Amino acid sequence: MAAGDLGEFERIRRFFAPLAGPGGLGLLDDAALVDCGPGRRLVVTADAIVAGVHYLPEDPPELVARKLLRVNLSDLAAMGARPLHYLLTTALPAVLGPEWLARFAAGLAEDQRRHGIDLLGGDSVATNGPAVLSLTAIGEIAAGQEIRRSGAKPGDLVWVSGTIGDALLGLNLLRGDYPDVSRQHREYLINRFRVPDARTELGPRLAGVAHAMIDVSDGLLADLGHICEASHVAAVIELESVPLSPAARAAVANDPRLRLRFAAAGDDYELLFAAPTDAAEAIAILSSRLGVRITQIGRVETGTGLRLVDAGGQPIAPEVTGYRHF
Amino acid sequence: MAAGDLGEFERIRRFFAPLAGPGGLGLLDDAALVDCGPGRRLVVTADAIVAGVHYLPEDPPELVARKLLRVNLSDLAAMGARPLHYLLTTALPAVLGPEWLARFAAGLAEDQRRHGIDLLGGDSVATNGPAVLSLTAIGEIAAGQEIRRSGAKPGDLVWVSGTIGDALLGLNLLRGDYPDVSRQHREYLINRFRVPDARTELGPRLAGVAHAMIDVSDGLLADLGHICEASHVAAVIELESVPLSPAARAAVANDPRLRLRFAAAGDDYELLFAAPTDAAEAIAILSSRLGVRITQIGRVETGTGLRLVDAGGQPIAPEVTGYRHF
Repeated sequence: MAAGDLGEFERIRRFFAPLAGPGGLGLLDDAALVDCGPGRRLVVTADAIVAGVHYLPEDPPELVARKLLRVNLSDLAAMGARPLHYLLTTALPAVLGPEWLARFAAGLAEDQRRHGIDLLGGDSVATNGPAVLSLTAIGEIAAGQEIRRSGAKPGDLVWVSGTIGDALLGLNLLRGDYPDVSRQHREYLINRFRVPDARTELGPRLAGVAHAMIDVSDGLLADLGHICEASHVAAVIELESVPLSPAARAAVANDPRLRLRFAAAGDDYELLFAAPTDAAEAIAILSSRLGVRITQIGRVETGTGLRLVDAGGQPIAPEVTGYRHF
Repeated sequence: MAAGDLGEFERIRRFFAPLAGPGGLGLLDDAALVDCGPGRRLVVTADAIVAGVHYLPEDPPELVARKLLRVNLSDLAAMGARPLHYLLTTALPAVLGPEWLARFAAGLAEDQRRHGIDLLGGDSVATNGPAVLSLTAIGEIAAGQEIRRSGAKPGDLVWVSGTIGDALLGLNLLRGDYPDVSRQHREYLINRFRVPDARTELGPRLAGVAHAMIDVSDGLLADLGHICEASHVAAVIELESVPLSPAARAAVANDPRLRLRFAAAGDDYELLFAAPTDAAEAIAILSSRLGVRITQIGRVETGTGLRLVDAGGQPIAPEVTGYRHF
């Protein structure tokens, strides 16, 4: 953590040094150290979130921190990697003072305990614009076991963890839409948007099981499209098999068109993967052992592109695909 | 590089994918892969720069890119690590379009060739504030060979590479101060501020030679203070031995007080290290072989704190220490 006035050193000492692991050298050196066991390979990813783009400036700082961590951990999980460490760079406006930082650091502390990771370093800079929070996550995997987007094969089944569409509903609720939702569903949905589950337990266990994997960040359809493109295959998805939470099912009961919007919406951070048919039993065992729903939603085919069909196998033309920032 | 609209994928394809190394997987996957040879340890660091804080918004994008890379490579060099890879996260205002990005990427391309490194991934996000450019650099070192700040021992000599104070003068020139400088010196000084040398050749060769090392980013005195604090030692520096470029010497001839300001100013990104007296010959050979000036400027002592003395050994009280952002 280079450069800065005394304020920065104090900020590091108070808020960030307590989060550092042994490799972070107390955040007192020019760089940090990462060991890599024999036969292991490191997996790295970086994702940033911006106030007003990826979260709402008034969101609780603890939850902003946890979302920032989890969107990155989700990328590691999508490669089948186990998370180890992270580096954090904050560009903060002056209005976010020690109280905001203390709560932000508390959110990091909670989630790094939960995921068994620690802080290695980073930087703290000032901006007169909105906060930009940038995180680099480092994980590990047995060399050659990484799950790429490019390994899907015709005949594979397509699976997704958890439920889809909750993040979209949560965001809409925060923006004042869907006022008729029950209080319980409302809390659940907003929480799913603010603090997505990163499937850090499931991801590494799919190494050797899944042929191709991605996390749902751009949207289920767009992300499956990425797998198809990288794997040079096509896929067919049965829209009604896309798993919904009770809260999302209640919303669909009011507005059936939502089902299609859920399939196009992003930010759910569930794992979407292709696996051979004979992996179905292993997947069922994993689902049961981890207590994570894993649902078969389609199938990989030869060709290119993505087909969305209804329960009768009739094609549905998605009028909305991909992800748009709000 | 997760999330985003088609514009982002096109931006990655055009500007950043050509910079990716094999481990970057074409910037098409959720994360990147880093191998670590047996007996090697990875060294990681992250530093961000903000338009209007660390560089001037009108600075040429090629030079902004190179400065961003080099401030990070300098941190790796200060640990004795050889650079390998980097991840880049850009938060850009809409006003910085394809032309700016193309020039920014060209600067990265030039410097990554020069330093033998490649891009692994990152993120591109939008901000309505000033540009925030965040980079994570990854290097490697033989396990146990890393040069910490904490290894300085009483009796060690203090050395610094290159020259000190050029970056301060370059910044002042860009801000319209020092109008009387010759055109040749002016170009030299501005270039030193905009594109610091990262001592990536020298740093790794000091493993096994230097007891402690840091790069001069906060200021020579402040950074030596960091070494003293981490090493639980004191140091004495002879102000007139601090190496100056011809351009900086010309400025000192006009204003002798500048010598002290140079010792306090940051952003020179030279390597400052403590080494035992019997390393002097090895250091001289390194200096000659690499064509990098390395100057002995002081000595490590028992105790705490930093003493600055003149050529006669008389104490000088620095009225300015440490680094201030402009």
